[in-house]
Amino acid sequence: MCRWAAYRGNPLYLEELVSSPAHSLIEQSHCANRAKTATNGDGFGIAWYGDHPEPGRYRDILPAWSDCNLRSLSRQIRSPLFLAHVRAATNGGTRRDNCHPFVHGRWSFMHNGQISGFERIRRRMEALLPDTLFDARAGTTDSELLFLLALHFGLENDPFGAVAEAIATVEDFSHRHGGDALVRFTAAFSDGNQLYAVRYATDHKPPTLYAAPMGGKCGKTTGYCLVSEPLNDDVDAWMEIPDGSAITLCDDGMKREAFQPKLMSEAA
Amino acid sequence: MCRWAAYRGNPLYLEELVSSPAHSLIEQSHCANRAKTATNGDGFGIAWYGDHPEPGRYRDILPAWSDCNLRSLSRQIRSPLFLAHVRAATNGGTRRDNCHPFVHGRWSFMHNGQISGFERIRRRMEALLPDTLFDARAGTTDSELLFLLALHFGLENDPFGAVAEAIATVEDFSHRHGGDALVRFTAAFSDGNQLYAVRYATDHKPPTLYAAPMGGKCGKTTGYCLVSEPLNDDVDAWMEIPDGSAITLCDDGMKREAFQPKLMSEAA
Amino acid sequence: MCRWAAYRGNPLYLEELVSSPAHSLIEQSHCANRAKTATNGDGFGIAWYGDHPEPGRYRDILPAWSDCNLRSLSRQIRSPLFLAHVRAATNGGTRRDNCHPFVHGRWSFMHNGQISGFERIRRRMEALLPDTLFDARAGTTDSELLFLLALHFGLENDPFGAVAEAIATVEDFSHRHGGDALVRFTAAFSDGNQLYAVRYATDHKPPTLYAAPMGGKCGKTTGYCLVSEPLNDDVDAWMEIPDGSAITLCDDGMKREAFQPKLMSEAA
Amino acid sequence: MCRWAAYRGNPLYLEELVSSPAHSLIEQSHCANRAKTATNGDGFGIAWYGDHPEPGRYRDILPAWSDCNLRSLSRQIRSPLFLAHVRAATNGGTRRDNCHPFVHGRWSFMHNGQISGFERIRRRMEALLPDTLFDARAGTTDSELLFLLALHFGLENDPFGAVAEAIATVEDFSHRHGGDALVRFTAAFSDGNQLYAVRYATDHKPPTLYAAPMGGKCGKTTGYCLVSEPLNDDVDAWMEIPDGSAITLCDDGMKREAFQPKLMSEAA
Repeated sequence: MCRWAAYRGNPLYLEELVSSPAHSLIEQSHCANRAKTATNGDGFGIAWYGDHPEPGRYRDILPAWSDCNLRSLSRQIRSPLFLAHVRAATNGGTRRDNCHPFVHGRWSFMHNGQISGFERIRRRMEALLPDTLFDARAGTTDSELLFLLALHFGLENDPFGAVAEAIATVEDFSHRHGGDALVRFTAAFSDGNQLYAVRYATDHKPPTLYAAPMGGKCGKTTGYCLVSEPLNDDVDAWMEIPDGSAITLCDDGMKREAFQPKLMSEAA
Repeated sequence: MCRWAAYRGNPLYLEELVSSPAHSLIEQSHCANRAKTATNGDGFGIAWYGDHPEPGRYRDILPAWSDCNLRSLSRQIRSPLFLAHVRAATNGGTRRDNCHPFVHGRWSFMHNGQISGFERIRRRMEALLPDTLFDARAGTTDSELLFLLALHFGLENDPFGAVAEAIATVEDFSHRHGGDALVRFTAAFSDGNQLYAVRYATDHKPPTLYAAPMGGKCGKTTGYCLVSEPLNDDVDAWMEIPDGSAITLCDDGMKREAFQPKLMSEAA
Repeated sequence: MCRWAAYRGNPLYLEELVSSPAHSLIEQSHCANRAKTATNGDGFGIAWYGDHPEPGRYRDILPAWSDCNLRSLSRQIRSPLFLAHVRAATNGGTRRDNCHPFVHGRWSFMHNGQISGFERIRRRMEALLPDTLFDARAGTTDSELLFLLALHFGLENDPFGAVAEAIATVEDFSHRHGGDALVRFTAAFSDGNQLYAVRYATDHKPPTLYAAPMGGKCGKTTGYCLVSEPLNDDVDAWMEIPDGSAITLCDDGMKREAFQPKLMSEAA
Repeated sequence: MCRWAAYRGNPLYLEELVSSPAHSLIEQSHCANRAKTATNGDGFGIAWYGDHPEPGRYRDILPAWSDCNLRSLSRQIRSPLFLAHVRAATNGGTRRDNCHPFVHGRWSFMHNGQISGFERIRRRMEALLPDTLFDARAGTTDSELLFLLALHFGLENDPFGAVAEAIATVEDFSHRHGGDALVRFTAAFSDGNQLYAVRYATDHKPPTLYAAPMGGKCGKTTGYCLVSEPLNDDVDAWMEIPDGSAITLCDDGMKREAFQPKLMSEAA
């Protein structure tokens, strides 16, 4: 289990999520309240969109709480769209290539969750990737693989459809190879324009996800942040995103639709 | 607050304390039971005595739980006398030079505790060091400074006397400079022959310390380990070392004497 | 010997100095041409001025050539004033606290050079620092100490005078304590408004320093970069800054004046 | 191009190869003489055989020249059979999983060389691995893949035959997929009993390999070291191993036989 926070809206310093709030992401790296594990000390990462289509990224393997670079960067960098993540390793060792967010071209992706029995199906899943995406795989996590599969299934044109197909594929693989087909998936991803998030689990116990307005309004533009757990005690400000949700943050604000991967096993 | 474990006796693989037991030191690095902080993820270190008078040492800044080198070394290295430490930083950033054990010549030293208001008296304390020991200071922790002061006060000839004088000096400095003179000190140190430990606190709330026989007997030689918290649930095996204790592990087994620094302020 | 590059002018992406040119700073980290050592692999750092008075900073201990974070940050961050450094360690181990640029409040500082016999006079020099600056010392390099001494001697109000006094003090200390009083000093420093540089050596063999216009003009504003060695083969573009120079980059362009610390030993 | 050194004979401290000689492996990490690149600063590793069938291992991503742990371990650890490596990255980023020696069960392996056009055939080569060895792949280097292929082809029973088949397979793949089938391969590997080495290149320009007696004699037992370049200037002591050699170090001393992979393309 990991913790993450993401923002879209008027440009905001990353520190507004990463280090300043009472229960900031750095605080959550050693004292998470609503996670299975209170400690998320196996590295961290930030990805933010600036002048280029491709996001900038900074990742490292130290616990977020002890990295002075992270504090300095979060204080200096201001962005209208960014993702930040602190990791508690399940699959994959502690190394930079296994730290979220993952980035491919304009796309960024971060994840909190798990694929039960991942090691048993990892190779078969990797075999689905076309050469370009296979070559792009730098680490060993289930999260990166879900991202690459989603890219393969058309993340560019139908973000939620592609993610749903990636998850369904994993569930089907797991079914066929004697696994329990358990996928828990609370993720955020972006192409630099919209910010997307999904909260979903086959057993209806997905990792938590909350939303709150943030960053002020400017005409129609409203900023929102999405977080694994609220950044402060203002209970009225935070809305829990229900299981089976697909969230879009865009210029019109926040939209929610149902998210339910269609399994081949069920289709049959 | 940190956690540590030390051993003296028949040669033992370091893993017997570091990684194998149910509540091994690595386990304590993320799930300590009897510490203020459950997480000790700000680096770790081991020092062991082998063929040379000077100990070998391996330290790094990653959490102990995610360092594969530590597991491999602990499995391979066998030693009749070793110290192992996982750190929860209070004073001093996360960097190798601030990781215990500290080593100077034949001596090794590790510590769990604190000097209240250290930052206010740090410079004055460093000024007490002769040039050689000042130059040997590589980090910024209160622990390393206590070690260097003890070396200055004659650790070589009177280990407990020197440590008591170092602590008393700190308390006196704190008194004179408006501090509360609070020192909590549970430490182990060695010259490669004996293994020494102290449990002491001015407020009588020193960090925990336990002892247990370990490593089998061979004639008169008996092995013992000293630990911040028991390595398993066998409650009968572990003896709590009381506040105000000086422990010596030598060929004759374990000896305990009272430890009470004589403060100048009290002497007056 | 290290290598560095600095810029002041219209906002420029850091990559224009750090990674894009044929002989970029990253290239110089493994193939420096005009340095004693071709390899500058003992860490690196960047400091840049953005929206805040205090600069942002990113430092790490890997060689610059293998750090993917540095490439991403240099590509994203655009600044009107920044410093970048790759290190070849002389005094002080390879750790973040010993990587340049050093930062104190609004000031940043980086250095290429040496103090001959530094270890012999280090403690005495540190003793000159007032408590605040002593406490600000995080590493063990001669460079950081020169920066802190310059701050003590009034960097804020008379940048070159303060640096000259710091250097003169070092030379005098060295004289008095049997050293050869050799100081080689090619440094850049800034308060976020002006960019200052000095090239000086007691033996008239200071590390190299070059300047070139860069970043285009915008009304009166002209951009300049200062570098340890030219970033490309365009020999006409690069002007060598002579020994004994103090350089100021400001809105009016580049100014040069003589730099000659006044030694007490000479004054007498 | 990397540099390495290996030893088999009477137990020797690792420092005898790693740090003590005039042109030790650490020295070669920044000043290699006979390599394409003088700097081998992209991490390092040691593997040694002790009391267990499986070797111990220590790897890290810092340049060898600045790692104090490596110096301490090399000074303390004594072994009758060990491998040590400093890396100059060609394929695969700077991370621990890409540092040599690679270890699988009792086997250790390190390599200096290259597969031309590796990226084009990497995936197909990985597809040859059975599941267990595929899952054992932790990094992204060509070297690790050659090791795993050799294990697949029977390294256990016919070391040189298995390595020859791995190389021939690579050459054939390269041929079929439009590559130039260039493989340069100077490697050492061991099961803890014998120490094996190969020097071979399809273009007859393999990286250098030298041997010298070392570590004294004890009855019939003679120690030898194998190195990328001589550890000192004693030209008479070092014998160059010719291109196309397979070397075995065992209790009877050093044996050399011809090494020539049989290509399927040639067989046809």
